[in-house]
Amino acid sequence: MTRKRFDDLGCSVACALNEVGDWWSLLVIKQAMLGTRRFVDFQHGLGIAKNILCDRLARLVDNGVLARVNAGEHGTRYEYRLTDKGRDLFTVVVALRQWSERWNGNRDDMQLVDRVTGASIAPVVVRNAEGETLTVRDVSFVGKDGQPLERAG
Amino acid sequence: MTRKRFDDLGCSVACALNEVGDWWSLLVIKQAMLGTRRFVDFQHGLGIAKNILCDRLARLVDNGVLARVNAGEHGTRYEYRLTDKGRDLFTVVVALRQWSERWNGNRDDMQLVDRVTGASIAPVVVRNAEGETLTVRDVSFVGKDGQPLERAG
Repeated sequence: MTRKRFDDLGCSVACALNEVGDWWSLLVIKQAMLGTRRFVDFQHGLGIAKNILCDRLARLVDNGVLARVNAGEHGTRYEYRLTDKGRDLFTVVVALRQWSERWNGNRDDMQLVDRVTGASIAPVVVRNAEGETLTVRDVSFVGKDGQPLERAG
Repeated sequence: MTRKRFDDLGCSVACALNEVGDWWSLLVIKQAMLGTRRFVDFQHGLGIAKNILCDRLARLVDNGVLARVNAGEHGTRYEYRLTDKGRDLFTVVVALRQWSERWNGNRDDMQLVDRVTGASIAPVVVRNAEGETLTVRDVSFVGKDGQPLERAG
């Protein structure tokens, strides 16, 4: 399968999609956030075919989202660890989880809680500089020159 | 191309990915947030092949993310409008944009600003119930029974 690139769309979202690659990649990242590091554990956790997992791990390493680290104390054993760039996808993963839970009910086998307090985390929202919540209707897309583009839906 | 389903992973992220479908779908949603409603305008805005666009729009309508509305005053003309469920993906789109801008520089032709003040919007972050910022290291994934699963990366 060839890899579709979206570079020419001049769009940060498209650019991010190039890097995270596809749905399997995002599930690999989510699994890594759960603490999974070894190839076999990703395979087991996600029920993903070896060749697809190989491809997605390699791509995520290429894009600096995961690092491939030799963690073998006696001999070679590779682990895949989230980089700072990978860990920074936490907001995206949580926002997507919460959206799914809001609209499809909580079908998840697990919950995400504050490690210290054990309490549920707050809904992720978009805020303006003053901390007020914004919906898509409260924002404008403007060009580099500051002139408005089309209106948001 | 058959559609991979992730229902059996028992995971909200996988469930969301089923619904938003694939990268093109998320770009269609982002384009709809810019105000695009007509088939030809999506096609032009994204440079997407007709058959792919047809398929993604149909899927997003099936999943309740877009609504197909007859907006013709004289005769039939269909528009695709974001539903509440679709507009609620705003947080995901903004989080993904901001991640891309943080790690790849701002390659985007446009900026997202508060419509009222014209100021840039704040970085989207995950917070606990008290409003404190959380990283992936500050959370635990626990089962339905409240028992901890694996540790986050």
